Amino acid sequence: MTGKLIVFEGGEGSGKSTQLQRLYTWLRESPQLKQLQASGRVGGLMATREPGGTALGSQLRQLLLDHDSTAPIDSRTELLLYAADRAQHVAETLRPALEKGFWVLCDRYTDSTLAYQGYGRQLDRELIRELNQVATGGLESDLTLWLKVDAETGLSRLQQRQADRIEQSSLAFHQRVQAGFEVLALAHPQRIVTVDGSRSEAAVAVQIQSLIETQLLQWYPQNSPPNS
Amino acid sequence: MTGKLIVFEGGEGSGKSTQLQRLYTWLRESPQLKQLQASGRVGGLMATREPGGTALGSQLRQLLLDHDSTAPIDSRTELLLYAADRAQHVAETLRPALEKGFWVLCDRYTDSTLAYQGYGRQLDRELIRELNQVATGGLESDLTLWLKVDAETGLSRLQQRQADRIEQSSLAFHQRVQAGFEVLALAHPQRIVTVDGSRSEAAVAVQIQSLIETQLLQWYPQNSPPNS
Repeated sequence: MTGKLIVFEGGEGSGKSTQLQRLYTWLRESPQLKQLQASGRVGGLMATREPGGTALGSQLRQLLLDHDSTAPIDSRTELLLYAADRAQHVAETLRPALEKGFWVLCDRYTDSTLAYQGYGRQLDRELIRELNQVATGGLESDLTLWLKVDAETGLSRLQQRQADRIEQSSLAFHQRVQAGFEVLALAHPQRIVTVDGSRSEAAVAVQIQSLIETQLLQWYPQNSPPNS
Repeated sequence: MTGKLIVFEGGEGSGKSTQLQRLYTWLRESPQLKQLQASGRVGGLMATREPGGTALGSQLRQLLLDHDSTAPIDSRTELLLYAADRAQHVAETLRPALEKGFWVLCDRYTDSTLAYQGYGRQLDRELIRELNQVATGGLESDLTLWLKVDAETGLSRLQQRQADRIEQSSLAFHQRVQAGFEVLALAHPQRIVTVDGSRSEAAVAVQIQSLIETQLLQWYPQNSPPNS
């Protein structure tokens, strides 16, 4: 039995963490998923995130987000720390859960590193792809939902929250990140679905639920209603 | 002005940290090095180490050496964390010091990762070379002193010390590490000098001082005595 890896991607203020939580709550009550679990075709449901999806990862996340700016983190160091967090997350969390047939909702994965470090910080994208490959051992998402919100809108949503190191970067940086996600979504249409994240939280949630219902029919075809 | 990077390598109990400290003390009092500093040809002298040569690195070192064994560190995670430590160390410590003309004595560098992870843990050595390249940006040592001590002798020297996670590995692991250093020393004779570390601390120290005096004449030839 192999589970499904569903990744939420997006820039700052895109609402992806909120939408992940909403989908998690909705799936937990979903009659279809309950039926798949009862019949043993789905092992369970879990939510996780990168960076910080493991005990070691949460220490790395703290290093990455709250590092003392008097000794800045070198850009290659940052890349390697994200890759280390990912390698541990894949080995300790994602692979074991997927092997047990879980549906895993994951906040950020490989595309974030390409968008933020590759396009945002303009580091060597070929190197990032290699590090993603090292860290994941080739484990790709079954579905990636990219919550598309332009950088200005996304950043304006953050005004109530304390900005961490990443969020303090310039607007131009966040615009490059958005453009990076756009390039990735165009390059991998079979895996990445673009969701207009500029609408209300409820409207976005409904669209995501509808996307997931369509996926359910594709992933578990014999589960379709008889006359559909 | 470019300084010199002098690396100490060796297995557990090889005495490399002790010898590094002895060389540091000896060089601090060396008339030749004082003269080179007075004439502005050497910027200064410093000692550092990997992992843990930076503030961020010392947090990573703690993660690597004292990680809770209930959630073991994945081998690829370990590799990426060592690379991250190295990238930060090169960017924050080694390159700036060498650019100021410092002599930098460093406890472990790229060969340790090849010996421990590549030969000891038998991870992909081509990948390790790539990660070393990413982390160092191509910065090689000017001289690497490999303190050669067989694994049994080295480990027996540790009995008084509390063994950390690395040192607790099996004898076979440490024998593979030693064999790895041997291969590296044979492959890079222009950079790696083998020092018999099985002798007394004082005897090893004298040999290292003699090696360094020879290097001084090669590195700063116009500094040679008139009739040499």
